[in-house]
Amino acid sequence: MRRKSLVNDTCPIARTLDVIGDWWSLLIVREAMMGTRRFSEFQKHLGVARNILSTRLKTLVAQGIFDVKTADGSAYQDYVLTPKGRALFPVLVALRQWGEEHSFRRGESYAKLLDRQTRRPLQKLQIRAFDGRILNQADTVVEPVAVS
Amino acid sequence: MRRKSLVNDTCPIARTLDVIGDWWSLLIVREAMMGTRRFSEFQKHLGVARNILSTRLKTLVAQGIFDVKTADGSAYQDYVLTPKGRALFPVLVALRQWGEEHSFRRGESYAKLLDRQTRRPLQKLQIRAFDGRILNQADTVVEPVAVS
Repeated sequence: MRRKSLVNDTCPIARTLDVIGDWWSLLIVREAMMGTRRFSEFQKHLGVARNILSTRLKTLVAQGIFDVKTADGSAYQDYVLTPKGRALFPVLVALRQWGEEHSFRRGESYAKLLDRQTRRPLQKLQIRAFDGRILNQADTVVEPVAVS
Repeated sequence: MRRKSLVNDTCPIARTLDVIGDWWSLLIVREAMMGTRRFSEFQKHLGVARNILSTRLKTLVAQGIFDVKTADGSAYQDYVLTPKGRALFPVLVALRQWGEEHSFRRGESYAKLLDRQTRRPLQKLQIRAFDGRILNQADTVVEPVAVS
């Protein structure tokens, strides 16, 4: 199925989804954040078909989300997140927190993100105004601005 | 293409993507947050085919993200976000902020989310430990926990 491209959409959400709005792409980024670097490891951890993984990784490299590195003397390529890729961390945390709250039943266990130092859960993401007030969606408005 | 279901995955990111990990679904939620309620308005604003929109809205209602309401005497149905749907706001803000930073060239204009009261931009989302420290992905660890 051909999808409409949002590459020229003026909404930053639409542009982001155009780049990473694919189920597998975000899971590949998640895997990389947990330390995975090799094609075969991504494949094993995600249970994804080789051809799908290959296509997604190529796109993610082309988008500047991953770099491909070959260690000296190694026959393997490493897929390493770029700063642009690592900047997706808040997206994954937001998805995670929503999932924790809405997609698990009592008694189920799930993989929780903890502060490495204290082993305690993180704060819930809050949307804040410049002066620190916590905002709901109704407290916000969308207006066109030019990139400076 | 049949995709693998992640409905039983223990990762909350995977479960969230299983529910809303579709390019159109998140754009439909975004539209609703901006005030859209009617099928024909979603269709017009998103430029999406009727059959795709119809399928996505049905799924989003089944997932408890939208309620369908019929106003007294109206021939139209309104699609209204539930609290579970409105709780996707931080996901959209995270996608938006990444897009603002990485998907626009100088001189392009884009639709920016502002504080309705002051018309100023919002704070950039920060991932924080319980004690307020700002965390990067490397400062975190994922561990299994049981839902209480």
